[in-house]
Amino acid sequence: MPLDLAAIHAAHDRIRPMIHRTPVLTSAWLDEQSGDSLAFKCENFQKAGSFKARGAANAVFSLTEAEAALGVATHSSGNHAAALARAARLRGIPAYIVMPSNSARTKVRAVEGYGARIAFCEPTQQAREEACARVLAETGAALIHPFNDYRVMAGQGTAALELLEDRPDLDIMLCPIGGGGLLSGTAIAAKGVKPDIKVIAVEPLGADDAARSFHAGRLIPLEQAHTIADGLRTSVGARNFPLIRRYVDDIVTVSEDCIVAAMRQLWDVLKIVVEPSGAVPYAAILEGKLARAGRRAGLILSGGNVDLDALPWGKR
Amino acid sequence: MPLDLAAIHAAHDRIRPMIHRTPVLTSAWLDEQSGDSLAFKCENFQKAGSFKARGAANAVFSLTEAEAALGVATHSSGNHAAALARAARLRGIPAYIVMPSNSARTKVRAVEGYGARIAFCEPTQQAREEACARVLAETGAALIHPFNDYRVMAGQGTAALELLEDRPDLDIMLCPIGGGGLLSGTAIAAKGVKPDIKVIAVEPLGADDAARSFHAGRLIPLEQAHTIADGLRTSVGARNFPLIRRYVDDIVTVSEDCIVAAMRQLWDVLKIVVEPSGAVPYAAILEGKLARAGRRAGLILSGGNVDLDALPWGKR
Repeated sequence: MPLDLAAIHAAHDRIRPMIHRTPVLTSAWLDEQSGDSLAFKCENFQKAGSFKARGAANAVFSLTEAEAALGVATHSSGNHAAALARAARLRGIPAYIVMPSNSARTKVRAVEGYGARIAFCEPTQQAREEACARVLAETGAALIHPFNDYRVMAGQGTAALELLEDRPDLDIMLCPIGGGGLLSGTAIAAKGVKPDIKVIAVEPLGADDAARSFHAGRLIPLEQAHTIADGLRTSVGARNFPLIRRYVDDIVTVSEDCIVAAMRQLWDVLKIVVEPSGAVPYAAILEGKLARAGRRAGLILSGGNVDLDALPWGKR
Repeated sequence: MPLDLAAIHAAHDRIRPMIHRTPVLTSAWLDEQSGDSLAFKCENFQKAGSFKARGAANAVFSLTEAEAALGVATHSSGNHAAALARAARLRGIPAYIVMPSNSARTKVRAVEGYGARIAFCEPTQQAREEACARVLAETGAALIHPFNDYRVMAGQGTAALELLEDRPDLDIMLCPIGGGGLLSGTAIAAKGVKPDIKVIAVEPLGADDAARSFHAGRLIPLEQAHTIADGLRTSVGARNFPLIRRYVDDIVTVSEDCIVAAMRQLWDVLKIVVEPSGAVPYAAILEGKLARAGRRAGLILSGGNVDLDALPWGKR
C-alpha cells in the first residue's frame, strides 16, 4: 500500500517537535443535546491555524537534502499555503506559493509572514496549475500538493492517532472531506489502530463530489462549489479516492444552514473559533445524519482561520 | 484579615470538583509582538462561561445546611446570575435571581436553563436593590452579592492560585476590575504565594471609578459607565476597596478602541471566544500601558459570554 499505519506513525515521530499536540474538548451540554458523547479534536489551535501544518511539515522534512535545497512550491489560496510556508521556514529553504489574485488578505499576510515568495495568478484552476508549473520549471522546487500526496496524507493522519491515544474508546470518527488529504490519513490511522471503528466523512451538499463519487464507485469531479466551507471547495484527489473507497464507511452531506448553525453553536458553547469547514462534522450530528445517537464520536475540528469581518451572522 | 491566602486555599479545596481547571494558553506570535512572555488563564472556558462559577460555588457550598435550605438570591444581569443559579442547582437548593428587564436574552436563557426563579425589575440600580430586598424578605434566602462578599472573593482568587501553580515564574499579573471581586481574590492569592509579584488591575477608561478611587485614596462611585466591557460597569465594593488598596500595585485604564482591538486579536490569534471584559488586561499590553516590556505576565481572561449577533466588528 502507498500509505499505511506505519507511515503515519513515522510521520508523527518526524513532525512531533514542530506541531502542537492539540487538546480534545468536550461539553456536557452538547452531549445532552445530541444524545452522543462527543470529543472534539481542536486542530483550530494547531500551528498556522489548521491541521495542514501536519502534512506540510511531514512532506518538507521527508525531502532529501538535495531536494530540499531547491525549495518547495504549491498552489493554494488557503491553509495549506501558510502551513507549507511555515514548514519551509522551519527547514530554512525557500517556499514558492502560487495564490489566486482574489485570495483573502489575511491569508496572503500569513504566507508573507512566514517569508514565502508569492506569485499571484488569475483565480481559475487552469491559471493556478499553469503558474505553478512555471514556478517548478524555473526553480526546480519540489511540488507539495495540498492533498494528492502520500507524505501529506501521512502527516494529516497524525491528528487521528493523537485523538485515539486520548480517547481509545471512540466507536466513530467524523472528518470533513474536501480534496481528501485529511480523510485518507484519518481513515487509515483510525482503522489501523482500531479496526472496528467507523469512519464517516462529512461534506457540504453544495460541494458533494466526494459523496457522489463514493456512491457511484468512480471519481466524479466537482463542477461548481456553492458552500461557505472554503476549505472543502475542491475535487477529491486521484490518489485519495481509492484510499477513501477502501477505508471510509460512508460519506454524508450537510446543508449550508446547518454548517452555519453548527459553527455558531461551537463558538457559543465551546468558546472557540472554528472555521466553517471545521464545523462540518458537527453539522452532521446537528442535522441528524448519523443513524443513531448514543455513540462515542470523535470529531476533527480541522481549522480556525476565519475572517472576523465576514462572519455569517451578526450583520445588522 | 477578613480574607487571606488560607481562605483561598480552603475555597479551592471546596470547589475543585465543581469547576474546570482551565488551561493556560500562550502564543509565540503575541510574545513576539509585545516583547513580553504572556500566559493567558482561560476562564472563558470555565463552567457557565466565566470565573464567576468559582465565587458562586464557594459561597453556596460555604452555607450551613439550615442557611442553604432557604435558598440563595442575588441581583445580576450577567455572569454571576448564571454562576449562582448553577451552584444552587449543584447543591439542590432554590436560587432567586433579580434581573433587569433589559437583560440579554442569552443571559436570561442561561439562568433559566439552570432552573433558577427569575424576578424581573426596572433596569436601575435602585429597582434592582429593592426587588432583591423583597425577594430576601419573602423567602429568607441568603444574599450572595456578586463581589462585595468575602466568600465570593475567596472563590475568585482560586484562578490566580492555579495560574501560579502552572506558571510559578510570573513576575506580573494583570486582572480586570469592575466591582473588585476577582481583583481582591487575585491580588491576595498572588501576593500570598509570591510576595514580590506585581499585581496590576486594568479598567476601561469609560468606567474608571476604581482607578480614580485608588489614586485618590477614597471610594469614588461610578456615575455613568460608557464601555463595551459589560462586566465592568459597576462601582467598586466597599469591602473590596481596602483590600485593593493594600494588595494591588497599580490600576491602569484602557480605551474602548483598544479593548475591541485586543478582543479581536485574541480571537484571531488564540482562536478563542473572549468577552470584552476578558480582553481588558491584554488591552493594557496592546496600548503600552505597562512601564516596560520583557515581563513574564499572567493575564486572567475572565469570561467568554458574548452575543455573537452583536460583535463590535463585521457589521457590513
